[in-house]
Amino acid sequence: MVVSPINGSSPLSHSNGRTIPLSTFSRNSFVNVEKGDPVAFRSYWEKVRDECTVEIKGDEWMSYLGDTNNLCWYMVPQMRDAILRLHNVVSNAVTKDKFLVLGTCSSQLYQALLYALSPSESSHRPINVVAAAPYYSEYKDATDILQSRLFQWTGDAALYDKDEPYIEVVTSPNNPDGTLRVPVVNSRVEGKIIYDLAYYWPQYTPITDQLDHDVMVFTFSKCTGHVGSRIGWAFVKDIEVAKKMIRFTQLNSIGVSRESQIRAAKMIGVICDGYKNLKSIESDHLFFYYSKRLMKERWEKFKIAIEKSKVFTLTKYPTSYCHFNKDLSEQYPAFAWLKCVEGIKDGESYLENLKIRTRGGERFGVSSKYVRVSMIGTDDEFNELCTRLSNAKRE
Amino acid sequence: MVVSPINGSSPLSHSNGRTIPLSTFSRNSFVNVEKGDPVAFRSYWEKVRDECTVEIKGDEWMSYLGDTNNLCWYMVPQMRDAILRLHNVVSNAVTKDKFLVLGTCSSQLYQALLYALSPSESSHRPINVVAAAPYYSEYKDATDILQSRLFQWTGDAALYDKDEPYIEVVTSPNNPDGTLRVPVVNSRVEGKIIYDLAYYWPQYTPITDQLDHDVMVFTFSKCTGHVGSRIGWAFVKDIEVAKKMIRFTQLNSIGVSRESQIRAAKMIGVICDGYKNLKSIESDHLFFYYSKRLMKERWEKFKIAIEKSKVFTLTKYPTSYCHFNKDLSEQYPAFAWLKCVEGIKDGESYLENLKIRTRGGERFGVSSKYVRVSMIGTDDEFNELCTRLSNAKRE
Repeated sequence: MVVSPINGSSPLSHSNGRTIPLSTFSRNSFVNVEKGDPVAFRSYWEKVRDECTVEIKGDEWMSYLGDTNNLCWYMVPQMRDAILRLHNVVSNAVTKDKFLVLGTCSSQLYQALLYALSPSESSHRPINVVAAAPYYSEYKDATDILQSRLFQWTGDAALYDKDEPYIEVVTSPNNPDGTLRVPVVNSRVEGKIIYDLAYYWPQYTPITDQLDHDVMVFTFSKCTGHVGSRIGWAFVKDIEVAKKMIRFTQLNSIGVSRESQIRAAKMIGVICDGYKNLKSIESDHLFFYYSKRLMKERWEKFKIAIEKSKVFTLTKYPTSYCHFNKDLSEQYPAFAWLKCVEGIKDGESYLENLKIRTRGGERFGVSSKYVRVSMIGTDDEFNELCTRLSNAKRE
Repeated sequence: MVVSPINGSSPLSHSNGRTIPLSTFSRNSFVNVEKGDPVAFRSYWEKVRDECTVEIKGDEWMSYLGDTNNLCWYMVPQMRDAILRLHNVVSNAVTKDKFLVLGTCSSQLYQALLYALSPSESSHRPINVVAAAPYYSEYKDATDILQSRLFQWTGDAALYDKDEPYIEVVTSPNNPDGTLRVPVVNSRVEGKIIYDLAYYWPQYTPITDQLDHDVMVFTFSKCTGHVGSRIGWAFVKDIEVAKKMIRFTQLNSIGVSRESQIRAAKMIGVICDGYKNLKSIESDHLFFYYSKRLMKERWEKFKIAIEKSKVFTLTKYPTSYCHFNKDLSEQYPAFAWLKCVEGIKDGESYLENLKIRTRGGERFGVSSKYVRVSMIGTDDEFNELCTRLSNAKRE
């Protein structure tokens, strides 16, 4: 990485904002499946690129006020309507009688929620924040970065045994392991639950229930793949929690990019239009049909590669009825969660030797025998990943 | 404000993203000059609206990676180049040998800087954060919202007398009072300085120096008026500070909206193109000429209204040579800072009775005899403000 300061010239070449696909990987180049950049769905958006075009003129969307009639004053009505329409189409969440809070992606909403759900009296001890291991690798640092007196990371929810107030983060489907989750803390104290539902979309999992929790967080990023827009939202039952979240967002970034809101609303509109008056839900013109088929094909190929490798085993997922797709289906998580077979202690290092860059189990609060692999990178990355895994046999 | 939760329908009417100007104010309607939404410059952007159009297709700018060759990996090269070009045109800051860190506006950069400049050992006492009063009304809450053990708001820099580590925020020109500022803390300990230069642009103040400080924060919002884009940036001398800021931004929002970056780069490009091969710097086609003329006209009108009112006095500003405009000029701050004459104790309440909504001195760490008034609202708001102030005479 070039880390030199600015030297007065502009040495960088420009790209057009699309990742330039590497058609071949050399033997020495790394396959990077460490991060979760969901570029896999770009092929869909290429097909509808013109239909999705957003045009913003010089004098449009200048103010930071989105809708002064809404509690979430920085959210434009188009964004609000698109989010409600999307959940209405997918039926994955009950939105009625809840407050909608927009955020600069779910990371900001996570911080806003920790603030909003913590006791505000300064005499109070920090509230404990827990999640069942394996948990998302950034929760710990995101919780503790500013060493707040309001909240503190306390680790694995399954091991939590204090009779003190707590916040449990329930990520379902879970990052990293794709499992469907429920709260696990067993305490005499009633906890507060944040449902992180970033992956509760039909391409990753059957939509088994229309969820109806007090705090539910979603993100545009993992739904459509437009992670660069940094758009997330939360449905919140309690108006006081919503107000505190909005106050946090105001102090943290005075709202959310208007350009991103306008674009996200447009993309969501294109998805929903596809489902209006449709004749069949089995059509590649429909986003969730296309993206689920893509995930299914990748998972089938991946399972064969893992079987050939004889080095890893995979999490097993149940088959469930999907109310959205109206079929029985497996889960196709955004990440694969691999466990090393007996005799191999460090999955990340093992794969690093095969020039595959991954994120090891210890980052997720479990042993280094586990390793997380992104399933949503480019086709080339994914294909090369499968080839290298197939040849991963121990000598 | 409607604060009811979602009721299943979508009752909101859509606007086209432009504030609909109220052509007349009724006697009972408020003139709201409390916030600093810089919509005054929209008239310029209306003239160049097509030239500034940004078009984003469905498959563009999807990833959150901006430039993996740059320390600030979420910043796209176009954004970086536009920022450097703008400072090269205006000559208000030395950018050489500094690291450029992009943020979701200067609010996020402020938080990132507090984190980056605080001692990281947890045994350490929180570092004191100070700013000379009157100071920006949100600094206190933005500093203390999460009750961090790393830093704490300590108030007026002029009163700071501890021999302990501190961070001094120097806002120049200052919000609320428009004065040009230098550090004021007198301590045996060497402090760290954050220069908040949101208003150091030629429409607000003569550009007297090319500033060359270790930490300088700018924002797109107050430069062009596109406050909805939430784009800010910092020039930082120390790579370790830059790295910590980027880590904070990663945990806080995983970077900055790509749509906003693309649009901001385009708008800045249009401004800079105007100054390339120009024949005269006195042309309404040039953004800073136009916006300075607008500010000058408003201030001239405003001074007359204040004089007529006999209720307030104004801060006096020096005349200085502007290296950018190559002329002697006064300052034309984004806010007017009014002081009540003898006998009136609360400026905000006094103006509230005249149906003028403002922000009182106590929010800025000084007495309620002072009050801040936005000078950058719509023409209608501004004209009505002047009319009401002119008639503000005490009975």
